[in-house]
Amino acid sequence: MSAVDVAKANVAEIAEIVDALDSAALDAFVAALRDAPRLHCTGIGRSGLSTRAIAMRLMHIGKEAFVVGEVATPGIREGDLLVAVSSSGRGSILRQAQAARERGARVVAVTTRPNELTELAEVSLLLPARAEVETRQHAGSLFEQAWLVVGDAVCAAVQADLGVPKEDLDRRHANLQ
Amino acid sequence: MSAVDVAKANVAEIAEIVDALDSAALDAFVAALRDAPRLHCTGIGRSGLSTRAIAMRLMHIGKEAFVVGEVATPGIREGDLLVAVSSSGRGSILRQAQAARERGARVVAVTTRPNELTELAEVSLLLPARAEVETRQHAGSLFEQAWLVVGDAVCAAVQADLGVPKEDLDRRHANLQ
Amino acid sequence: MSAVDVAKANVAEIAEIVDALDSAALDAFVAALRDAPRLHCTGIGRSGLSTRAIAMRLMHIGKEAFVVGEVATPGIREGDLLVAVSSSGRGSILRQAQAARERGARVVAVTTRPNELTELAEVSLLLPARAEVETRQHAGSLFEQAWLVVGDAVCAAVQADLGVPKEDLDRRHANLQ
Amino acid sequence: MSAVDVAKANVAEIAEIVDALDSAALDAFVAALRDAPRLHCTGIGRSGLSTRAIAMRLMHIGKEAFVVGEVATPGIREGDLLVAVSSSGRGSILRQAQAARERGARVVAVTTRPNELTELAEVSLLLPARAEVETRQHAGSLFEQAWLVVGDAVCAAVQADLGVPKEDLDRRHANLQ
Repeated sequence: MSAVDVAKANVAEIAEIVDALDSAALDAFVAALRDAPRLHCTGIGRSGLSTRAIAMRLMHIGKEAFVVGEVATPGIREGDLLVAVSSSGRGSILRQAQAARERGARVVAVTTRPNELTELAEVSLLLPARAEVETRQHAGSLFEQAWLVVGDAVCAAVQADLGVPKEDLDRRHANLQ
Repeated sequence: MSAVDVAKANVAEIAEIVDALDSAALDAFVAALRDAPRLHCTGIGRSGLSTRAIAMRLMHIGKEAFVVGEVATPGIREGDLLVAVSSSGRGSILRQAQAARERGARVVAVTTRPNELTELAEVSLLLPARAEVETRQHAGSLFEQAWLVVGDAVCAAVQADLGVPKEDLDRRHANLQ
Repeated sequence: MSAVDVAKANVAEIAEIVDALDSAALDAFVAALRDAPRLHCTGIGRSGLSTRAIAMRLMHIGKEAFVVGEVATPGIREGDLLVAVSSSGRGSILRQAQAARERGARVVAVTTRPNELTELAEVSLLLPARAEVETRQHAGSLFEQAWLVVGDAVCAAVQADLGVPKEDLDRRHANLQ
Repeated sequence: MSAVDVAKANVAEIAEIVDALDSAALDAFVAALRDAPRLHCTGIGRSGLSTRAIAMRLMHIGKEAFVVGEVATPGIREGDLLVAVSSSGRGSILRQAQAARERGARVVAVTTRPNELTELAEVSLLLPARAEVETRQHAGSLFEQAWLVVGDAVCAAVQADLGVPKEDLDRRHANLQ
């Protein structure tokens, strides 16, 4: 199987994930991000990298968006929203979600299926890689790709809802590197 | 346009990029990564995040793969390969590619179209977002998504070529966070 | 020479740097950080790590402090202050300072001696490692140590000037990791 | 109290920490780092930044040194050494040390006093900030400064023991940023 054919198969798998999306849950997820006064985004490994890309776009849109673990990120506090991303919904991301709740923060989850993390979350965006959708790819790859693609659609919806013009995003884009 | 419809449109754009891939160039790109004794991967902003995801998978596969700017990354030296990722092919990534060449390292590029960066590179993977393929998305989003999806296909091809079993990847997966 | 003796020698070198400080310049540096509406902190390698530590403390104190290159860091704009840290005052940090000035931002420098970077800066904190003060240590180690120690003194002075109670710092401390 | 006076007081506190060092324990710590085939270094917040600076220097010296949480860091395995840095010896760093031990890895600790983390560690470097040594500084500042200064002395001792010439360190220094 050539690399091009693998890439096509990857795209087909992402398309399946998107077809399986619960449109009402996705709209609720968009609304939660749009309305939160302050966002803390968290994920580890490759999920964390897609999460960082989404956090960066949310910052471009004008949301106060932080990434857990970055130097300039303050503690989470009452009223903040934790965007907790974990395909398994276990381990350190689950612990962070529990700690966020104990501090009066709210939680939304991005994961593959109902689990302990979704029980803590007021809204869950399910990307059913390895759940409803089979994948030929290694480990969480499909989840990580789908979260980047769907997350960017979430960002576009937040931007449209808030009526933020493209120029505002360009203006906030990092300009020193 | 609902968020689900935006996600579907995003997937369709990625599919267009994949359809536009030059299969021979992609195979050469796979071979360059597969055969390099040591890889340095670099990109900034969201391109850099997709690049980190690909570097992590290459490490899982058993390649000695570094990310420029990380603490544990040594200097580049003769014979090393720089994987330089930049949609524009300008700015600091171009400067890094020039510095790598001056030190006797080799360069492969991931970019959108022929430019100064591809002139330095022995192989270029063109993901023609905003070049041959139109996009409704903000800024480099399509490039960043396509690089993650195509990059994962590149990784799968490298893994298959080297005959690395899935268990080896799992074993190298980060296990302390 | 035992490791304890090396540690003692390191401390003696830092003490020499502190003795060589220009008190008026240090006070002007404190005032610049205290009064800036928004801070962007930048450094590479180990200097960058000490810079991140100082940026984190400034955030704890309540300053809007960003680290160049972090995901949640917006572009620099008119009126922002760039804290540019580089022992040599050359290379990418100098380029960032130039870019900051072109965008109407102000610049303060942390470096070892007068150079191209200090020419761009309205205030410069000179830590004369390898300039007035000899060091037995490798490369920039003394500069990096001195910047952490003196930078923390700067933070304490900013905190005192602004009258920020300790409890406010604790409240902003990261609490999810 | 002027910023210069605060800086002098900070240096005096670091000197006290160094005077309180257990020389035999420090030598054992040096030997553990020197002899480990592969090092994983971990710390969070500002302790983690000093830890990264030490890890980078160990890499320059030629040790295979990784930072937990970086993209290119593989899983820890039997025989690897975890350098676990935490002033309190609790929380996520303690959990990582436990996970490392379960995987057959060894652990050395950098902390302020005997605690759960030191119980897991074969060697502990105690920097008694807030334990034997009082501090006027905020939170863990003294610990973070002392760890950078003493850690650099540890690195110098490792370098001397292994007979690594300065030129080798320069050669491994990052050269693309």
